[in-house]
Amino acid sequence: MTTTTDGRRARGDISRETVMRLAVDIASVDGLEGLSIGTLAMGANLSKSGVVALFGNKEKLQLAAIEAAREIFIASVISPALKLQGGRERLEGLLENWIRYSEGRIFAGGCFFAAATAEVASKHGPVRDAVADQLAKWDDTISRVIIRAVDKGELARPDDVGQLAFEIRSVLDGANTDSLIFGSAAPYDRARTALKRLLSR
Amino acid sequence: MTTTTDGRRARGDISRETVMRLAVDIASVDGLEGLSIGTLAMGANLSKSGVVALFGNKEKLQLAAIEAAREIFIASVISPALKLQGGRERLEGLLENWIRYSEGRIFAGGCFFAAATAEVASKHGPVRDAVADQLAKWDDTISRVIIRAVDKGELARPDDVGQLAFEIRSVLDGANTDSLIFGSAAPYDRARTALKRLLSR
Repeated sequence: MTTTTDGRRARGDISRETVMRLAVDIASVDGLEGLSIGTLAMGANLSKSGVVALFGNKEKLQLAAIEAAREIFIASVISPALKLQGGRERLEGLLENWIRYSEGRIFAGGCFFAAATAEVASKHGPVRDAVADQLAKWDDTISRVIIRAVDKGELARPDDVGQLAFEIRSVLDGANTDSLIFGSAAPYDRARTALKRLLSR
Repeated sequence: MTTTTDGRRARGDISRETVMRLAVDIASVDGLEGLSIGTLAMGANLSKSGVVALFGNKEKLQLAAIEAAREIFIASVISPALKLQGGRERLEGLLENWIRYSEGRIFAGGCFFAAATAEVASKHGPVRDAVADQLAKWDDTISRVIIRAVDKGELARPDDVGQLAFEIRSVLDGANTDSLIFGSAAPYDRARTALKRLLSR
């Protein structure tokens, strides 16, 4: 534990981070709705009032979990790809990182955002809006990396960048879903085959 | 109400069907986990003991909802396609029926099975197995209709039928997800564009 002039605050930060990681894993398996103050308190061996002190109410806890998942997603998938300088290299790296992020079960329930999207898609409110915002950002990241590869002359200009980004996301999500429900790694190779074809059109 | 020698049984059947349709809609929005004896009793204006008498426990209710959703899916998507005799005609009809089934919100929360799959994919038990079985059947249906079109000389033989079926399902599910989370019908046209290209390879 870091020693600071305000020890309570440092302890608070460490608890929050540890509890947050647990919250994200619970949500990836049991859904954001399964992420209650009570289940989290039990899992983290804290009192309910301790969890409330850290996060506030259930909705704030859900929003904090989405934000924490986003940070892990960026660190696992996006940041390593942004270090790759080639146009096509960065695009292929980004997609392979995504496959490894899902296949490696960085979240216990596979892609956190795929699970969260399916769960909240037919609902209303701030949690749904936060998930939709994350999905739009991911689509935008893919589109920007596609355009960069095209501008560097390393990828044929697609008729419609949005269409290509949609097809790429569909194949990635399809592999995540199939792998989880059929308990197999084979769908990731199907995704790699599909992506290779999508990027060679 | 049908008049039979056993009036109670006929009333039971009608109640069961009406309550079942409600159960499927609840599950498509709130998830199979959100489908409790209590919420269903409230929605159907029945007593909890009345719902228990119709379905038994929660797990049996969830399994019955999956079976009921399957029947609606077959009636909406598969049966009308099986009336089409041409090889490519049947394949294209099947996929267009799926798009209309999702876009038309035959279930309040879009594709029942997409929502159910995401929800149970990381869990264990009979409900998860039942959902996995439905997904495998749908994949098998697509594969058989592809092979039929190939055998009739109306579709180029794909390198790998399973790969093509995977890519088709990914694009359909991607459109369902995007349409729900972004509140737009545009993803269905993206799916149509992607399918046209997949079937013209």
